[in-house]
Amino acid sequence: MRVDKHIVASMNRQLVLETIWEKGPISKAEITRLTALSLPTVIKIMEELAGRGVIASCGKTEGSAGKRAEQYVFAGDAFYSIGIDMTPTNLKVVVIDLNGRVLGCGKKTFDQIPDVDSVLNDTQALVLSALADSAVAKEAILDVGVAVPGILDTEKGMVLFSPNLRWENVDLLTPLRERLFAATGIRWELQMENSNRTMALGEQYYGSGVGSDYFICINLGYGIGAAAMEHGELYKGISGTAGELGHITVEKDGPLCTCGNNGCLEALASGRAIAQQARNLISSGVKTSILELTGGDPAKIEAKTVFEAAEKQDMAAVDLVRKAGEYIGIGIASYINLLDPEIIVLGGGMSNEELLIEQIEKVVKVRRMRFAGRKVQVRVSELGEYATAIGAAAIQLKRLLRHGGRLHANGEEEAV
Amino acid sequence: MRVDKHIVASMNRQLVLETIWEKGPISKAEITRLTALSLPTVIKIMEELAGRGVIASCGKTEGSAGKRAEQYVFAGDAFYSIGIDMTPTNLKVVVIDLNGRVLGCGKKTFDQIPDVDSVLNDTQALVLSALADSAVAKEAILDVGVAVPGILDTEKGMVLFSPNLRWENVDLLTPLRERLFAATGIRWELQMENSNRTMALGEQYYGSGVGSDYFICINLGYGIGAAAMEHGELYKGISGTAGELGHITVEKDGPLCTCGNNGCLEALASGRAIAQQARNLISSGVKTSILELTGGDPAKIEAKTVFEAAEKQDMAAVDLVRKAGEYIGIGIASYINLLDPEIIVLGGGMSNEELLIEQIEKVVKVRRMRFAGRKVQVRVSELGEYATAIGAAAIQLKRLLRHGGRLHANGEEEAV
Repeated sequence: MRVDKHIVASMNRQLVLETIWEKGPISKAEITRLTALSLPTVIKIMEELAGRGVIASCGKTEGSAGKRAEQYVFAGDAFYSIGIDMTPTNLKVVVIDLNGRVLGCGKKTFDQIPDVDSVLNDTQALVLSALADSAVAKEAILDVGVAVPGILDTEKGMVLFSPNLRWENVDLLTPLRERLFAATGIRWELQMENSNRTMALGEQYYGSGVGSDYFICINLGYGIGAAAMEHGELYKGISGTAGELGHITVEKDGPLCTCGNNGCLEALASGRAIAQQARNLISSGVKTSILELTGGDPAKIEAKTVFEAAEKQDMAAVDLVRKAGEYIGIGIASYINLLDPEIIVLGGGMSNEELLIEQIEKVVKVRRMRFAGRKVQVRVSELGEYATAIGAAAIQLKRLLRHGGRLHANGEEEAV
Repeated sequence: MRVDKHIVASMNRQLVLETIWEKGPISKAEITRLTALSLPTVIKIMEELAGRGVIASCGKTEGSAGKRAEQYVFAGDAFYSIGIDMTPTNLKVVVIDLNGRVLGCGKKTFDQIPDVDSVLNDTQALVLSALADSAVAKEAILDVGVAVPGILDTEKGMVLFSPNLRWENVDLLTPLRERLFAATGIRWELQMENSNRTMALGEQYYGSGVGSDYFICINLGYGIGAAAMEHGELYKGISGTAGELGHITVEKDGPLCTCGNNGCLEALASGRAIAQQARNLISSGVKTSILELTGGDPAKIEAKTVFEAAEKQDMAAVDLVRKAGEYIGIGIASYINLLDPEIIVLGGGMSNEELLIEQIEKVVKVRRMRFAGRKVQVRVSELGEYATAIGAAAIQLKRLLRHGGRLHANGEEEAV
């Protein structure tokens, strides 16, 4: 709580860097105006940041008085980070620069829910290939971020409970650090965060959440989850478990969920649920083209098979998609009534399915309470299939901005 | 965002006052330690606060080194405030000192949902009688806080949409200010806040939320609502409408709610809903003692009639209470899964009904996701039936603390 000159200096450095990051290209005068700091303070901080290579000049432009003012930007293209996204259906790795540009990537699809060891093996291989793909020297990587679905102990690097991966009390980061060291000879620091939260981080820095004071990111995929970003900070809750939108009850006596409860949103409307509902329909004898799309093997039905059939006007498939959309819409409307965010970003594998999104938007419109959440905008993510991995890599951008451009890398001390 | 010396001074004054308010009786040395400010700064601020009468010495006690250190407390008993709680079933007014002691109060019960004008009339009368009851001189009142259910424009003093009061686009504060001026000759400033939020304010300052960094207050009454208090601040949302827990959907095709949607928690489990369900049972011919308790008049059935019958083991009544408790438990478990708060305080008229609370606690335990909200505590409010009115009056405590002890009263300028 102390407000002394060291904290003020550190806050000011962070403030200047975040302003440049957010508003750049921007001049010293403009930064002075926006931050209300004195010009000498701004100049001193910017000299330090430029010295570290965290910001860079990008030339002069015409100012309002006709004079030319030098413009500065965050030098995100000079910093690199790796993001890893672990899900029950696939594993993704990206190498990005801190402007969010994907320089290298790799993906592995799973036929069945993978165990920890095989994920570690695949991660090791994908990191190497993504690095090679990116042509970024491994020494230039700041650090690595890892996205995992479920409830984590991020301090200890433990997966406490991931219903969808079926992992419980797994120490993930210790062996992963060793594997990456064995493969590259570098001891990166690994930061781990829940997948929904890394997705929100990616949207905050590079996507639909840029500039928003309070937005929610909803991950519509194999599971359903959410993360809220408040004043640029992830809202995590007191036990660190906030955001389990997939596990709000939407049908009291609904189907059993992987979490052990009945009628969770995820049990009724997730990718996993939609695939299961299609298999149930088929085994009860309903005639649908869904089965044909998998060559007659019900075990191969995935949510995307159902969406494909729905696009071809298969009525059973359309019905499944509409029902899922209704439940998701109900969940989102409840979320709006409860939390009244500025923006809701829909991400994850199912967020590109037009029929589903249409239905969700229709239901949200009807179910949202009158006058509640008047300002909310619902948007679909534009970061593509690597959104969560990009967000995992963005953990390093967050650290860099937070520390006013200082990070342990390059032999420098990490600021407290 | 500017961090200059004036803001630092103002933050420090607020910090010292809040520390005394929270931790008092407390010595200067202890405040210095807790705030990490310098002793001269603390002494200067405390002299100013004592000069204004905002803090007071309460004698000396034995210090750790055997010396006697003078102890200070927030002089809440020297400041008074009025709180008004408007609901569809009754109107309550309290006069409190800013330590939360109720010095005077008054209540009026409505037979039917009141219109604005009759509420204004009754408020005027109740404020006068509560003031007389309190023996506090009207000139000593800092200001007045008003609690109204529904969606408000607190800046303009407007009720935008209160489904339960059936008020829409009503300017409440302008005529109320005039009425109170006509009755007392004093032009108080009126602050208005949503009832659930004032209830949370009361818990924050005088109840189960004291010292909590993140708690949620759930109002179980004629309607159902909630408010979250984060780092001592009300979480209001972007449009100012957060907290509509009563309007999350818990039964997709459930009964019509006053808000226009189907299957809202409030439509299934509020006091209004429980009474309606009892009337429905009776009109469909179910034998229950509920009717006898109202002398055979179904129109007179209220939720408390049902609770009374349930206590006497009337099985139809027990069933209604259990069902309501199940829905409320589902709503709270969803809230925990989504937000992971530290404490959930149950308040409102139904929070003293043991059978209901038992059922809620049972369902929350089952429905809360494993590992999620591990640290959450569910508590029942201890502030009694005037809790919301006390919270409305506490708006003035909040202003006083926020402004480091300065308020417009006593001829002083209000700090920005």
